[in-house]
Amino acid sequence: MTGTIETLEPLRRHLLPIAHLNSAASVLSWDQETYMPPGGGEARAEHLATLQGLAHERLTSPETEELLGRWLDLKTGEPLSGATDGWNPIARALLRETWRDYTKAKQVPNDFVRRLGKTCSLAQQAWAEAKKQDDFASFLPHLTAIVVLKKEEVGYRGPVPTPYDALLDTYEPGATTAQLLPLFAALKRRLIPLLDRIVHSPVKPREALLTRRYDRDRQLAFGRMVLEAMGYDFSRGRLDISAHPFTTSFHPSDVRVTTRVSEQDFTGSLFSCIHEGGHGLYDQGLPATHYGTPLGESVSLGLHESQSRLWENCVGLSRPFWQHFYPLLQHTFSDQLRAVAFDDFYAALNSVKPSFIRVDADELTYNLHIMLRFEIERDLLEDRVRVEELPQLWRDKMKSYLGIVPPTDREGVLQDVHWSLGAIGYFPTYTLGNLYSVQFFNQARRDIPDLPDRIARGDLLSLKAWLNERIHKWGRLYTADELVRRVTGEPLTPDHFLTYLGNKYGELYKL
Amino acid sequence: MTGTIETLEPLRRHLLPIAHLNSAASVLSWDQETYMPPGGGEARAEHLATLQGLAHERLTSPETEELLGRWLDLKTGEPLSGATDGWNPIARALLRETWRDYTKAKQVPNDFVRRLGKTCSLAQQAWAEAKKQDDFASFLPHLTAIVVLKKEEVGYRGPVPTPYDALLDTYEPGATTAQLLPLFAALKRRLIPLLDRIVHSPVKPREALLTRRYDRDRQLAFGRMVLEAMGYDFSRGRLDISAHPFTTSFHPSDVRVTTRVSEQDFTGSLFSCIHEGGHGLYDQGLPATHYGTPLGESVSLGLHESQSRLWENCVGLSRPFWQHFYPLLQHTFSDQLRAVAFDDFYAALNSVKPSFIRVDADELTYNLHIMLRFEIERDLLEDRVRVEELPQLWRDKMKSYLGIVPPTDREGVLQDVHWSLGAIGYFPTYTLGNLYSVQFFNQARRDIPDLPDRIARGDLLSLKAWLNERIHKWGRLYTADELVRRVTGEPLTPDHFLTYLGNKYGELYKL
Repeated sequence: MTGTIETLEPLRRHLLPIAHLNSAASVLSWDQETYMPPGGGEARAEHLATLQGLAHERLTSPETEELLGRWLDLKTGEPLSGATDGWNPIARALLRETWRDYTKAKQVPNDFVRRLGKTCSLAQQAWAEAKKQDDFASFLPHLTAIVVLKKEEVGYRGPVPTPYDALLDTYEPGATTAQLLPLFAALKRRLIPLLDRIVHSPVKPREALLTRRYDRDRQLAFGRMVLEAMGYDFSRGRLDISAHPFTTSFHPSDVRVTTRVSEQDFTGSLFSCIHEGGHGLYDQGLPATHYGTPLGESVSLGLHESQSRLWENCVGLSRPFWQHFYPLLQHTFSDQLRAVAFDDFYAALNSVKPSFIRVDADELTYNLHIMLRFEIERDLLEDRVRVEELPQLWRDKMKSYLGIVPPTDREGVLQDVHWSLGAIGYFPTYTLGNLYSVQFFNQARRDIPDLPDRIARGDLLSLKAWLNERIHKWGRLYTADELVRRVTGEPLTPDHFLTYLGNKYGELYKL
Repeated sequence: MTGTIETLEPLRRHLLPIAHLNSAASVLSWDQETYMPPGGGEARAEHLATLQGLAHERLTSPETEELLGRWLDLKTGEPLSGATDGWNPIARALLRETWRDYTKAKQVPNDFVRRLGKTCSLAQQAWAEAKKQDDFASFLPHLTAIVVLKKEEVGYRGPVPTPYDALLDTYEPGATTAQLLPLFAALKRRLIPLLDRIVHSPVKPREALLTRRYDRDRQLAFGRMVLEAMGYDFSRGRLDISAHPFTTSFHPSDVRVTTRVSEQDFTGSLFSCIHEGGHGLYDQGLPATHYGTPLGESVSLGLHESQSRLWENCVGLSRPFWQHFYPLLQHTFSDQLRAVAFDDFYAALNSVKPSFIRVDADELTYNLHIMLRFEIERDLLEDRVRVEELPQLWRDKMKSYLGIVPPTDREGVLQDVHWSLGAIGYFPTYTLGNLYSVQFFNQARRDIPDLPDRIARGDLLSLKAWLNERIHKWGRLYTADELVRRVTGEPLTPDHFLTYLGNKYGELYKL
């Protein structure tokens, strides 16, 4: 037995229609968020449910079991005795990751998937309305039902050290609560004092400098230009408008990003472009030859987020980036920015300030928003808090970590869509992404010693090529942990991130 | 046994995922023609093939056979003895039409479908290039292969009086060559002399009046306004741009139309809007309760085309329509049309003149273009002509019917995409649509005596409501022949169409 990818060709051929169904579902979702007329929503939900159902059916089918069972024990994922001896890493990874996907899909009964889907569909509508009306009580029964279901899901996922791990692993394979706790502890220990010093610093960036009226089309053209500079390939992508920016991929040859536009504030649209562009580069950089198998997919949500945050923060909020792009921005918005000096602009852009809304948070306070959610989710799963107590718990934690209390639930516990989608255990991937991003960026700086100079000259392609080569092209060949060790020579650590923040904001706020 | 639609609920539930797959495929195709980046084409073809393959698999599955076989003989479609006695017409029609779809899908082997698909995929690319290069020779082997395959398909379709019938029936259920021949003979007998009198008439509409520069966005806004006046519901639809205008439906709640825009000629964009709007009204008017079964679908391509042509020609090219809309058009394009008198505008719009390109042809010569194609297709299937002789045969027939000879194959035999898609037997549905359209419109005028006055006041909704009520809402409950008899009290006849043309152009050209 050769044990190469060819050995697994029957498996690959069997998986391919699943990828096609998932890609088709992604096209339908993209359309739903961008161009679908309002009347189309109900039918669209049915179409999506059928595509997802067929994909799930095929992934958990006897054919999958037969094809995997030739080589490994379906219960444990361990290779049958001697069956894969001498196989190359690609073939082994394909088997390992396919088994993982199969097992994840098989763990939960079809009936549960349907119940969860229906509950979340209703919950999402209830959440949107509750948020609009600032009425947590109307969302309460829905969220309660979801928490009950997610606890049921924990039961299906097999033995885990702590319930949270069962859900977390869906979004971040291999991550555990035991790994997250010290990370968040370190962040808490360092970020809260740092924030306190910033809040009390005499330096006050004048953010109001940025609040002007910016033409919508010019904003989009500027965002497009930056995406092109990043190496995002428009012959294999698009930029559209949606209420909540996102990236979606149907194949490495068709990866689309969206942004939002506000005429008052160009940063919303531009940083969404850069953030989603980072996701987009990852998806465009995945190996097309492995499309349809796990080897053609991204490692985890945290790894994906590392790519968006690296571009958004390490690049897009950096001095070198704006050395090149600020003159271009001033040229584009001459009336608005002509008189704004570089340093004032840069400081305003990097202003740190406790705020209520996670998605608008600066890169320092952002992780405190995540920590709060992580703690609440664990409390829910381990019955330390009841759902009706969440609004108050939220306010207490905001007070304790950020020193502010949201005046409404709309700006508090109701702000995020995730729980209404059943996505409990998802939030920590954002923080993991932030930590990975700086750790990767520091390595890129070591590997490309003049990287800041290159960025300051507008050369973003060197960094893009490095990311393609070191991270994107491997798909799921390596686990997140293996990949970060391979790329940076050490496991994930909060040190890079904390040092980066300390240096950057120490300088900006003269601490 | 009650014999109502509820009796067939298991069948309906079995069919529903097929509709979902087909709707999803339609979203993918719409995206492909409107927004897909160029790089996405190859993967998209794979996604579509999988969706279509899964739909085909389910339609021809043992489950379908079991569900149909309870009530009818799978070979003949005849009800089992007494099985459907006393059933209501809806339940009968559902059974009849599902059996038809099942049989059509079952007749051709999977292997043939794949071979045809692959051949056509290559042929379409070759055709596009051959058309661009005006090089029939490079398309010849592809078209030859397609003709061979379509003859093979005729063999699968079961015994028919003439090979053409086997292919025609796919597009126009129930239509036969024997029915078409006298229709085309009547058209030929009347249209060629009428055209000759027009060509020699001293009246010469000044078409050049219309050739100006028209702002693209204003053209689109005007088209949108007309679509709204027609009752096309934008909360359940969209208007986008594509190279070739089309209508697509994912469900009656999401029916989209496209148009093309040329700055030199507003008629291309406007009449595409009206034409596709006619298709769109049909699809928006189909019964949503029957979505997923044949009762939620349109009767035939000819019937569909009758809706687009009724709006495009009987309404959009009529005097009453422009009595309302010409002042609005003059207001929109004041510089261009302010000085153009109504009668001159109307005459220019309705100018009749032999021309090379079918899609640009006026409503009189249009059917001669179709007749030529119908004759060539029959000659091909019955071995009276070889593929390599087509360019010359095309020129000969153009000379004989229209009195002109295209100087290139690009303006001759290479102009249409249909054959490269394997769509032989499709063209006559366009002529059927033309004939149906006038026959229906005449009935609408009888049923709504002041219809021209209403249209002249800009009230297009009375006509739309009539079409909804008399045609759209029935889905495939009636066959085309039954429907036209029900609506107009007589079978399809060319008389309405010929009288309409004789009157209209007799007046315009003072014959």
